[in-house]
Amino acid sequence: MEIVLLCVGKTDRSGWTIAFEEYQKRIQHYVKYSLEVVKPEKSSTKIPISQVKLQEENRLLSRIKTDDTVILLDEKGASFTSTAFAHFMQKQMNKGAKRLVFVVGGAFGFSPTFLSKFPLHVSLSNLTFSHQMVRLFFSEQVYRAFTILNNHPYHNT
Amino acid sequence: MEIVLLCVGKTDRSGWTIAFEEYQKRIQHYVKYSLEVVKPEKSSTKIPISQVKLQEENRLLSRIKTDDTVILLDEKGASFTSTAFAHFMQKQMNKGAKRLVFVVGGAFGFSPTFLSKFPLHVSLSNLTFSHQMVRLFFSEQVYRAFTILNNHPYHNT
Repeated sequence: MEIVLLCVGKTDRSGWTIAFEEYQKRIQHYVKYSLEVVKPEKSSTKIPISQVKLQEENRLLSRIKTDDTVILLDEKGASFTSTAFAHFMQKQMNKGAKRLVFVVGGAFGFSPTFLSKFPLHVSLSNLTFSHQMVRLFFSEQVYRAFTILNNHPYHNT
Repeated sequence: MEIVLLCVGKTDRSGWTIAFEEYQKRIQHYVKYSLEVVKPEKSSTKIPISQVKLQEENRLLSRIKTDDTVILLDEKGASFTSTAFAHFMQKQMNKGAKRLVFVVGGAFGFSPTFLSKFPLHVSLSNLTFSHQMVRLFFSEQVYRAFTILNNHPYHNT
């Protein structure tokens, strides 16, 4: 079992990387956890957004294996408490996929085609946040989920 | 006008502080923004949670001025999109308070008394997250709010 956070975006800078690696290290007490980043497509007023999305989604697809369980992080997805998210993760892991791949789209989100190809959608918040933030925020939730599933005292409430 | 993030918690470590200060610097193009931290109360199975909350809330109260506009960050509060949060901030600022004070409680949240004393409650997510994360996450939202209110291109979607 392995968890992958697959993102469209740039490589992070120092402060963020340190904090991300802190969670990665903690998660890896429980499960292999890695970050994969694909390049964002350059956008301009001359290029249709649908084309930007298509390019980015082709890059994402090239990293997804046929036997992965894929979950899109999308603002219109299901929203969970941390405990409910832990149980959602457990349910997905129980399906027996080798990899659970959570996907973060580019600046313009996912196309309708991509959204329907991968019907599991999770929303972290109604708020929009930066690509650096989503990596950190999501990683803390994955760590928190494993502490909940293992009765580790990290999650107090 | 000044915005204060008032938290029960510990002082942060390096990676987090760097990222927080990055947002603080950006926000200060628009408004004075500072972090104030009060000590958490030690908790144990022998001390009732209500007493822990009371001690922490007394520390928070000692930092709040009578003419502040106080907003509690609470998971049961109103949830916003980033654009709606920007307009909420604008509305609060329009009331003319010198300081807008956003408050993050301790590990056990706020007491019913404190919640009713300050009736403005905002939820950042249904998910629970660490005290380091909430500072960073909130700061990015404040920065994002000012870019939205000032038509700065940071907020794409």
